[in-house]
This record gives sequence, C-alpha cells and structure tokens, in this order.
Amino acid sequence: MPTDPSPLLPAAPSDAPQPLSAPALDAALAPDALAATIAALAEGRLDTAALALGVRERLVADAAGLQAFAAWPEPAALAAEARAAAARGPLHGLPVAVKDIIDVAGLPTGCGSPLRAGHRPAADAAVVAALRQAGGVVVGKSATTEMAFLEPSPTGNPRAPGRTPGGSSSGSAAAVAAGLVPFALGTQTGGSVVRPAAYCGVVGMKPSLGLLPTAGTACFSWSLDTVGVFAARVDGARRLLEALTGRRWARTDPSRPWRIAVVDGRPWDEASAAMQDALGKAAARLAAAGHAVTPTRLGAWAPALFEVHAAIQGREASACLGPLRAARGDAMSATLRGYLDEAAGIDAAAYAAAWQRLAAERPAALAAFDGVDALLMPSAPDAAPPLSARSTGPSTLNRVWTLLGTPCVNVPGLATAEGAPLGLQVVTPPGADALALAVAEDLEALLAAG
Amino acid sequence: MPTDPSPLLPAAPSDAPQPLSAPALDAALAPDALAATIAALAEGRLDTAALALGVRERLVADAAGLQAFAAWPEPAALAAEARAAAARGPLHGLPVAVKDIIDVAGLPTGCGSPLRAGHRPAADAAVVAALRQAGGVVVGKSATTEMAFLEPSPTGNPRAPGRTPGGSSSGSAAAVAAGLVPFALGTQTGGSVVRPAAYCGVVGMKPSLGLLPTAGTACFSWSLDTVGVFAARVDGARRLLEALTGRRWARTDPSRPWRIAVVDGRPWDEASAAMQDALGKAAARLAAAGHAVTPTRLGAWAPALFEVHAAIQGREASACLGPLRAARGDAMSATLRGYLDEAAGIDAAAYAAAWQRLAAERPAALAAFDGVDALLMPSAPDAAPPLSARSTGPSTLNRVWTLLGTPCVNVPGLATAEGAPLGLQVVTPPGADALALAVAEDLEALLAAG
Repeated sequence: MPTDPSPLLPAAPSDAPQPLSAPALDAALAPDALAATIAALAEGRLDTAALALGVRERLVADAAGLQAFAAWPEPAALAAEARAAAARGPLHGLPVAVKDIIDVAGLPTGCGSPLRAGHRPAADAAVVAALRQAGGVVVGKSATTEMAFLEPSPTGNPRAPGRTPGGSSSGSAAAVAAGLVPFALGTQTGGSVVRPAAYCGVVGMKPSLGLLPTAGTACFSWSLDTVGVFAARVDGARRLLEALTGRRWARTDPSRPWRIAVVDGRPWDEASAAMQDALGKAAARLAAAGHAVTPTRLGAWAPALFEVHAAIQGREASACLGPLRAARGDAMSATLRGYLDEAAGIDAAAYAAAWQRLAAERPAALAAFDGVDALLMPSAPDAAPPLSARSTGPSTLNRVWTLLGTPCVNVPGLATAEGAPLGLQVVTPPGADALALAVAEDLEALLAAG
Repeated sequence: MPTDPSPLLPAAPSDAPQPLSAPALDAALAPDALAATIAALAEGRLDTAALALGVRERLVADAAGLQAFAAWPEPAALAAEARAAAARGPLHGLPVAVKDIIDVAGLPTGCGSPLRAGHRPAADAAVVAALRQAGGVVVGKSATTEMAFLEPSPTGNPRAPGRTPGGSSSGSAAAVAAGLVPFALGTQTGGSVVRPAAYCGVVGMKPSLGLLPTAGTACFSWSLDTVGVFAARVDGARRLLEALTGRRWARTDPSRPWRIAVVDGRPWDEASAAMQDALGKAAARLAAAGHAVTPTRLGAWAPALFEVHAAIQGREASACLGPLRAARGDAMSATLRGYLDEAAGIDAAAYAAAWQRLAAERPAALAAFDGVDALLMPSAPDAAPPLSARSTGPSTLNRVWTLLGTPCVNVPGLATAEGAPLGLQVVTPPGADALALAVAEDLEALLAAG
C-alpha cells in the first residue's frame, strides 16, 4: 500500500521555486510512495518544480559518489518544464532519468564517448517526446557505457558497493536503485536493461521489440536496439510503459495461477551456486503459492540464436560505428575498437545467413512458451562482478531474448550472502508485455514476503 | 534484359576524378541498365567516383528546374566516399538520394523547415549506415515537405509538368522519375512513399512496418513512420531492400498464378474516372494472363482504422512537434500549425482508445487477405493535382495500410489521357514483402506489355 506522503510541502507560491527539502524528497521518492506522489503532483499538493529541483540538486551533488549522471538541465529551464508538466497526463511531473544515448532537446547527447561529447540534438527522441507528453520531467541524462557497448562508465552500484552497476544503462539502473529518481529510460541490445537492473536490485523491463520507438537514440544495432524502463517496483514499470504507449494493462484477474517454466541447466553460462539457489527459492515460493512450476531446458535453437545475435549485432554495429572507428579509433576504448575490428569481418553473406537462420529457428524458440505463461531464469549468471574486473558483466542470458523481441522483466528481491542483488527474469512471448508484468508482479510480492 | 552499358568510361586513373560524361551518365542511369551498371561498378569498368560526381553535377545544376534536392556533399568528400563504396556490398557504389528528414553524417538535416535549417547530425541514420555498408553512395538530400507533413516543397514533377510530385517524399520520387538517381530513400506516415511514387510514375515501396529502421530519422509519429524505397522498376526496389536488410527474396516460382482481390467501391475517396479505368485495365490484364482476379470491398474496419490512424498520428505529432509549435510557430506554415493545434486536442484517453480499437479491428482487417495473395487498389484517387491546388494530394488510400504495417508497392505504367501517371498499389499482409514485390513485378510486366 502506498504510504501517506505527509511530509510533502505545499506547492511553492513563488515563481522561483526552491528545491524540496531532504525529508520531503525522501518521502516523495520512497518506492512505496509512487502512487501517492503522482496523486500529490496531480492535485497540486506537491510542486513539480520543487520536486524536480530537489532531485537535480541531489544528482548534481552526487553525495554518494555514484556518478550516475552525465548531464542535467539548468535550474530555470527545469523548473519551467516541470511546471508545464504538472497538467499533462498520467505522470503529472514525475522526474525521470534518460540514458545518455537518447536525445533530449536542450541537453547534449554524450553517448559516454569523447567522440560525441557536446553534440546537441535537434529534437527530443520519440520516446522522450512521449515521456514529456505523459507528464514526465527529464531531470538528467544517465551515464552510459561508451556508445552503449562494454567499456564501463564511472558509475557505481548503490546496492553493492565495490561492484559494477552493469551496463550499458549503468546510470539509469544506479539512479533508480539509489532512489534519486523513480523512473529511468534505458536501452538493451544484448542485456543492457535487464542486467544492470539485476545487479542494482531494481525492476528493469525490456518490452517487446518495437513497443517503444528508437527514433532519436544512438544506434548500435538497429535490429536489436530496444528501449526499456527502470523502476523500483513492477507497478512502476507498468505505469511508465502505459504512460509512454497509451496501452492499458490493468490486471483483471490477480488471482490466476500461472504456469511457469523454470529454465534450469545452462544454455550458455553456468549460473553461480548463489544464483542457482536464488532460482530454486523463487520456484519454491511460486509453487507454494499455487502456481504450476515445471523445469525446462532451452533447445538447440538457443545456442543457434546466440550466434545469430552475434552476427546481426556485429554487422550492424560495424555499419553504425565502423566509419567512426576508421576515422577516430584513437578516441575509442580498446574494447570497442577490438570489437569493431572483429565485427568488420562479418560480411553480407554471413548477415543474410543469420537472418535465414533466425527465420528457421524462430518457431522452435517460440515453442518454448507452449503450455506455459512465462519462463523464469536468471537475469545474469551471478551477482555483479567486482569493479576490479573492469567488466559490466556478461549478457549471455539476455541476448537471444533481445533478438526474439520477447518482453523480459528483471525481478529483484534476492541477494547473495553478502547482500549483492541477484535478479531473475520473467520472459513471455513477443507482444505479451502485460502478461510479463503480471507474472513479475506476483513473483515480486512472493519474494518480498520474505 | 539489361542493355550493355557500352558508352561507360573506364575507371579514371587520377586521384581527382572527372564527372562522367553526359552520354555515359545517361547510359549508366537508364532504368533498364541497373544490373549492368552495378556489374560495371563491381568490376571496376565504371568508376564510382566519376558516376557520383556526374550525378552530383546534374542535381546541382538542376537544369530541369525540379528543385528535388536540398543539400549535397562537396565533390572531394563525395569522390572519396564513392571510391570507398566500390568494394562494399551489393550496390558497389550506386548513387542514392536520401530524404532530408533522414540523417546523413556530414550533411545538414533540413526537414524542409527553417526551424531545422543547418542542423548537423552526429551520425548517419541507421538506414543510411546500412545503405553505405551495402555500397550505396549518398549523392544528395532529397527535398521533403515541411517536417514531412503537407506543406509542399518547391519540387516539380518530371513526368507531369504543372502537377505536384506528391509528398512528403517529394524529392525522392522526383529524382528517381527524372533519372537523376537510380534509388532513393523516403518515409511514409500517411501516404508519403506510395503517393509521390504514383504521381511521379515510379516504383515506391513502403515495406512492412519496422523492416527498415527509423533511428536517425526526424519523427512525426513514431508508431506510423515507415522508411521506404524508390526505384524505376520493381526489381530495383527489391535489390535495394535486399541490400539494406540482408534478406534474400529471389523469386523461386515466377510462373505462379496470383489470387488478386481488386478493391472496388470507395472505402474513403471516390477514385476518378481515369483511375477507375486504370484499375479495370490492370485487372483485365491480370485476368487475361491467368491470374485469379476477384472484386472485393473493405469492411467496416477500414473507416474505423482511418479514425485510429488520425488519433495516433495526431497525438504523436503533437508530442514530437507541439513544443516547437509553441516556441516557434511563427516559423511554421499555417498548414502545420493548424494541424498541430487541432491535434493538441487528442488527449491520452483518446489515444488509448485508438490503440484498443486497433487491437479490436486488426483481425477483421487482416482477414481481407484471406484466400488471396494480394489486394490491388489505386495508390491515390487520381493523378497528381495541379500545382495551383497547393496540395501534395490526399493520402486517404494509404493511411490504414501504414497503420497496419502492410507492404505496399506502387506500380507505375498507366496514365491519364494527358499522360499524367496513374499508380496502383499492391498490398500484402505484414511481413509478406517478398510476395508484394513478386506480384508487383508481374503486374509491372503486364502493364509494360502495353
């Protein structure tokens, strides 16, 4: 149940609003307060500009040293935008972070690379236009790995100090995990939404391919790039997606027992002992709650599509970034440069063969959903790697779902013995976004029940 | 059969290539020479830089007064790019025009509006990255109506002087029709590929929604914006799409009799007498050639989806361009300003209702394809309106197909008594792009047979 946001200040009467006080900010941004905060914004009991300025102050100060943001608006512009947002639809001025490969008019799109530093877009990305129209207020550009690939941003992990927040949507996941913003936008081409959400212990949803538009986002691989959302709770992810898309996904039958296939064995990477334990615990909770839980293994299509993903991503990244690598490779990380050099070897025939293989394997892959509502599997093989590994972690458990365009929702709630988050993903067939959210919400509740 | 490109010059040995001579250019760009020209480029018998510079010289001179282009590269940069393209995949250096709402690195993206004049993108749009990787050479940014809406560009119609070339991909259609370039890219949100292709007497294909990526294109309505292609012949459109997507759509059974449903009656706009005659002629040719031709009418879903299209386009355009209208409406046409002011009234509830209605009507709409391979109907109600009408013509016969994401191919070949082109469109179910091309190619041949 949402708590009563009692410490919220009344709307500031002045034209030069002050940032919200720290206690009021804490109350407004508490994960359980989301519905109440939106209601307070809608009714004018909470000033959108004061909220946005309070959030901005915190992310600029970066007291926790998270380095989750790459850019943010000037206070006056932000206050004006926030004021205008209050009367707009369903978010009513809620602050949102936007990954710094997604264009926001008035702010640079830095892409985590000196090669794009300071570039100013002509307009909002389509998803940002939708966000503003829905009443979202962009309070900052959240840090990304270099060009949304693997070279880490400086961002820390607020839930697991000393570990990577994951990538490439590092800042988006970390900002939500730290309670700096209720919502964030990110993108996933391999595992760049689900993985950082898992490592940071928040909800991250990669919706069906194409549900959210990519116009105005920096391209890495146009057939795979998928815009996704971050929130503290599944309900938040649903609200944000509904607001962005005009869909209505209210649950009609909350008591329905789900048929869940738990993916065991290892399609690609071995899950750690802690992750296997977490998966087992989740399965046991679901079964105990009356859901039908069965074990399953992914077929031969899975390693085949893993290769298809690599070929498609490689050739498209080579198209998008190969010319820049040739001209300014000196300003790229060795990681990205090396990847592009290797990807340059994927020729048109290999790319065409990959598409043919996808068409051939797709029916078998989608048959994994026959007779079940959703698959459940780890979002990543383990908790976040230590920062010393200089890695944002493997996307091995995410890539084929990105390729197939299935909804994937990371559900947090479990952790290692040291307290590092362990995330599980709910996966449903393409187009079944509402179903993925419903199953994830029930699992979230079961895990929260302790 | 492709003609032998005998007048083609050998590759220029110099580092400062000269533009191709006029006769050689004519031969290389003749519609029937496409395959031979690509072969000559691939084998080095035709110098890519000389070809690109020759094309550039013509479009800059604009001797026909078409005003089909808004920007073009400098000669040295173009020559270097063309040289590099020769060794790349299947287009081997073929010149291509790109609609001026699609980002091309190194050139401004003007969007047909003073509000975007001179804006330089950070990178190629995804489809342009794919085009370059496939060996295409961008020789110019083709003129667009203002922000890809209805206010005409100054572009003329080379096949019907005194008439509009249609819009919004005006320059793309006109440039191909004038033989300035073999290929062009455009976009369609209502009817902006199929309609100008029809008016200019060329092939224009709006492929399945999402087949070509929109990242890097200026957004008007993210759920509808669809990148499409222009070519003189259906075979050219297929080659370009295959090159851009890695698909292989070679025909396996050219002799198959098609089942074609000819849409008669008037779902929205009455077709002119000339258009009705053209449609009847095409149907008779198909039937005479042994194809199964049946009449059909579109059901009640058609006017319903017409309204859905209007609601989705209106609210999304309002999100994308509403802020600009508020800030700089003075620099917008009255047409666009008025549209945005009206669209601002489409609220979140109306938008959500539109999506629900689409979901409800989609099965009935797709049932229009039951038992047939393709639908055949006019691409526009009539030939192009006269320039004096200050209109790019109605998109009434295109909008629901854009919404449904079906492939649509304009097939030229028929004309009014005065010689103005009359276009017919072949429509197939979403994903059946190869089928649309195959049917269109057979119709093209039947119409060309005279």
